[in-house]
Amino acid sequence: MAAETTSIIVDWGTTSLRAMLVDAGGKELDRLETPHGISTLKAGEHENALMTALSPWFSQYGAVPVAALGMITSRNGWVEIPYVRCPAGSTELAAGTSRRLLPNGSDLVFLPGLTDPARRPFPDVMRGEETQIVGHGLACDATLIIPGTHSKWAGVKAGRIESFQTFVTGEIFALLMTHSFIARGATQPPVDDPEAFRWGIEEAKKSNVMLSLLFSARTGGLAGELSAQQLRSYVHGLVIGQEFRQAQDAGWYCEGNRATIVGNDGLNDLYMVAAKAFGLDIFLGADDVLNHGALEILHNALS
Amino acid sequence: MAAETTSIIVDWGTTSLRAMLVDAGGKELDRLETPHGISTLKAGEHENALMTALSPWFSQYGAVPVAALGMITSRNGWVEIPYVRCPAGSTELAAGTSRRLLPNGSDLVFLPGLTDPARRPFPDVMRGEETQIVGHGLACDATLIIPGTHSKWAGVKAGRIESFQTFVTGEIFALLMTHSFIARGATQPPVDDPEAFRWGIEEAKKSNVMLSLLFSARTGGLAGELSAQQLRSYVHGLVIGQEFRQAQDAGWYCEGNRATIVGNDGLNDLYMVAAKAFGLDIFLGADDVLNHGALEILHNALS
Repeated sequence: MAAETTSIIVDWGTTSLRAMLVDAGGKELDRLETPHGISTLKAGEHENALMTALSPWFSQYGAVPVAALGMITSRNGWVEIPYVRCPAGSTELAAGTSRRLLPNGSDLVFLPGLTDPARRPFPDVMRGEETQIVGHGLACDATLIIPGTHSKWAGVKAGRIESFQTFVTGEIFALLMTHSFIARGATQPPVDDPEAFRWGIEEAKKSNVMLSLLFSARTGGLAGELSAQQLRSYVHGLVIGQEFRQAQDAGWYCEGNRATIVGNDGLNDLYMVAAKAFGLDIFLGADDVLNHGALEILHNALS
Repeated sequence: MAAETTSIIVDWGTTSLRAMLVDAGGKELDRLETPHGISTLKAGEHENALMTALSPWFSQYGAVPVAALGMITSRNGWVEIPYVRCPAGSTELAAGTSRRLLPNGSDLVFLPGLTDPARRPFPDVMRGEETQIVGHGLACDATLIIPGTHSKWAGVKAGRIESFQTFVTGEIFALLMTHSFIARGATQPPVDDPEAFRWGIEEAKKSNVMLSLLFSARTGGLAGELSAQQLRSYVHGLVIGQEFRQAQDAGWYCEGNRATIVGNDGLNDLYMVAAKAFGLDIFLGADDVLNHGALEILHNALS
């Protein structure tokens, strides 16, 4: 395969560097991962870390365009790239990239994150999810849900990401399961209990008093009605259920509306269950959207 | 002072044993604290730990009635005392006590916690706050707020605690400040910033989308609008504000209603500010209510 039809996508986060070698259609040819996340690197060490990580592919293909995204473009990364403002599509995101030449002649393109300046009290931000959304496609107006530590709900309109909103569901869940008194005593190792998850969803549907509802993780045990084995999935249902309830309150959907789940953070099955419970007409998008989106923005930036 | 007019209140928790020597009117004459919380004791060790802790007072006064409350009466304590059910006043709580004789002839009375069986999805529970409420007084119908790690809102009606509800505000705040990514970077040691607290309250008034609102602790910093010094108090305002908003949704008050803050967990000033912001006609109760309540239930149990 010729170098001009091959590209590299580098998803460079806090604790690791993941790289994907893709063909012109975004198909993954190879992948590698190193522990050289940005938290392990000092100023001036990034280029070497990247060249070392990618050297097997550079040896084989010579100069290859590289798209880098993730925390690498944040304040604590290599180069801080300003957020592009909503509404934005592939063109606007490409215009917000920053380009430099690597020692072997490869183009390195830093991809920007996205901000929604209309959110209150402060502009909302995403870094990586906008690339996944581009990979999913912007041709059809849609409501998209990208589950994660900080879940995103996004609206696509007229070929661009029109607006989005963050829900810190995954982080609250992790805090509760790892450090809280409320959800102490869950079976270890973690057990997935689909029925307990649905139970949590149903309770979340009944109450918007979240600070009180969370205490049911404890009172359920005291009442002898919620077992240690059910606890984790029940709490997961409570918080994901609250996300759907609050997203509805925030105007993201009405019952019977259509929405699509994008990305692949291991939560899609649970979000499908929750979406159905809240009356959404829900679809599951492709899960390899990051590569496709990064490639599209990369080509746009280099063309 | 004669032994018959002196009593001892033991607030025996997970990590410590606090004891108060009080006169017949509930006035505190002396207090002591030992690190012998229930987590440090095995079955069979409790009586010795108590006798050792109280020996200075027993030497001076001989046999003295002792009321014990807190986690000592929980499943992991010395004697598990079943929760008394709402509605309950001093009489019902006294009927739920359990009594035994200490080696020196002192009556030891274990005080029960309280459960509200009407709460969904599971009965709510308190252990200690019911004693504070009795100490505050049940003569007037009232809405009471007892701030804490797990705040309680309680309704007093016709001389009894009619119902109550828990809000896990304090625990969520602690999780966010200690372990979260959202609120990382707050100034250490903690800074109290009254203006930032009010700001958080105001934002909580504007939005019931709590899982999204919490992310403003992070986006405020990214936007350069919320400083590391403001972060802690701002987040405290967000979560306490959410408690008041959700308590209103749960039917605990309407704007202009009267409520009283009971107890002394170091949060009363903040709760006063929040209550005023939410339009409550708010009063601050006495802060030595635990001793008075325990004494009343103790006398009731022994009479």
